Amino acid sequence: MSHFSVSILGCSSATQTSRHNQTCQVVDFRDKLFMIDCGEGAQAQFRRLGLKFSRLNHIFISHLHGDHFFGLPGLLSTMSLHHTEGVVTVHAFRKGVELLDEWMSFFNRQSSFRLEYDIIEPGERRIVYEDRGLTVETYPLYHRIDCTGYIFREKQGLRHLRGDMVKFHQIPVSLLQGIKEGADYVKPDGSVIPNAALTTPPTPARSYAYCSDTMPNPRIPIDLSGVNTIYHEATYGTAFEALAAERGHSTARQAAINARDAGAEKLILGHFSKRYLKTGEEILLRESREVFPNSILADEGLVIDI
Amino acid sequence: MSHFSVSILGCSSATQTSRHNQTCQVVDFRDKLFMIDCGEGAQAQFRRLGLKFSRLNHIFISHLHGDHFFGLPGLLSTMSLHHTEGVVTVHAFRKGVELLDEWMSFFNRQSSFRLEYDIIEPGERRIVYEDRGLTVETYPLYHRIDCTGYIFREKQGLRHLRGDMVKFHQIPVSLLQGIKEGADYVKPDGSVIPNAALTTPPTPARSYAYCSDTMPNPRIPIDLSGVNTIYHEATYGTAFEALAAERGHSTARQAAINARDAGAEKLILGHFSKRYLKTGEEILLRESREVFPNSILADEGLVIDI
Repeated sequence: MSHFSVSILGCSSATQTSRHNQTCQVVDFRDKLFMIDCGEGAQAQFRRLGLKFSRLNHIFISHLHGDHFFGLPGLLSTMSLHHTEGVVTVHAFRKGVELLDEWMSFFNRQSSFRLEYDIIEPGERRIVYEDRGLTVETYPLYHRIDCTGYIFREKQGLRHLRGDMVKFHQIPVSLLQGIKEGADYVKPDGSVIPNAALTTPPTPARSYAYCSDTMPNPRIPIDLSGVNTIYHEATYGTAFEALAAERGHSTARQAAINARDAGAEKLILGHFSKRYLKTGEEILLRESREVFPNSILADEGLVIDI
Repeated sequence: MSHFSVSILGCSSATQTSRHNQTCQVVDFRDKLFMIDCGEGAQAQFRRLGLKFSRLNHIFISHLHGDHFFGLPGLLSTMSLHHTEGVVTVHAFRKGVELLDEWMSFFNRQSSFRLEYDIIEPGERRIVYEDRGLTVETYPLYHRIDCTGYIFREKQGLRHLRGDMVKFHQIPVSLLQGIKEGADYVKPDGSVIPNAALTTPPTPARSYAYCSDTMPNPRIPIDLSGVNTIYHEATYGTAFEALAAERGHSTARQAAINARDAGAEKLILGHFSKRYLKTGEEILLRESREVFPNSILADEGLVIDI
């Protein structure tokens, strides 16, 4: 199976704390790196985790609050000082692109790479990245300001050839690709060997959803339906459900309900309020597990295989 | 003596390293805090050193390279989340004020404090801050782009009364302030007691100069003449003197020459190139001490009494 993981670079809400950095994570898919959100300190965390700037070409911003954005100028400048080449694309709402570009065209005039922008419209559902093995798409979230989530979907692979059958039937090499794509084998004598006898099913395609700052909304589990692993903000515990609603956030329990209703396999809780700094976030984990047992807490440096 | 110190929050050049943060320091004068430069991560370092946001009302920026500037949005946003009140003034060149204001008026619309700006003109020598006990003034530096240094000068205090003489001569309380300011005492019988017999000299006024990114220039030791403690960039060792000149920087030896020629008492070396990450900066210290023995190396968390 090809490598598909997410590394947590920061999972605090609003401000940094002595325990957590501001929001940032990196998806690693077959050695290509994709950053999601970029709070201050993202570049330091990126390097601390031993990640390579040269493999990072896409940065996805969920919304324009500083704790998800202020790491961009420093990260991009450092990438240039490290002679990163090619194109780096920042995906963000229009105002974020404008503000970032104002700074970068002044501070990073002699960039080693070409900085490009992909403007995301509020509310849109669109594939914002695609390669041979992966798509990344947006879906709307419901915060105090415009906010988008991102879903990373591995593309369905081909069926696997059964070596023994290929040999037994002496199938010509020129036909193998078609058989991996689902074709039957028609022998020279006209008889047909059905595909199911020649192949085994493809590896199930995996998917990962980043659910940034949001209030609960019945659309979310529909948009995330069938996703394997979900990272969901869980700023507060149930005791602060009213506060969460007022500030456009979710409780851990509400995150768990979304994961359950989406049919997910695993839920990563993050974006913790600093009020859990002293007590720890175990209360959030407990409340989530009551609804969705396979919940875990995000933490800086944690790497989760998808 | 009133408190007068400087804390080093970051002393790397260009990028963060595993050892050093980007440039930032905080002068503490009688519990008022003054930040100089604000690289990314300044807010985290500020808190790590146990400094109080509520005491920080002035931020002085030397020049508009990102490693001296990118910490501002995060710092100011966090100060607002911490309900800092009153006025916070950022002193910087015009373009820096414009770029910062673009971001802050978007990201920090509901600031808890009033953000004001003091625009510094390139090359100017001006007192940019003054209170009862302190002035802060600019002086020009000589980098690849416009750059300013800052000199913190304690104001000369009053002469100290000699309690024994005040008592002996039964000097009325209403005259004491004048005597502290230097007046003689004229007794009721008309005879005069000279001030020198009634007072001892004032505590010597102390001063601290921040010498940011700069090439050597004969104006620098003149501008810094008589300053007690100097922080001077010392990006490279003498082996890289040509590179230093090309990039608008100084070697440790050149910093030492400036300190010596200014008649300083102490020199703090900082703004280290990452090429000294593995070997350590002792080579810089050695080369500086050959010219100016009372040299020390800056380091994160170091607090130097002025």
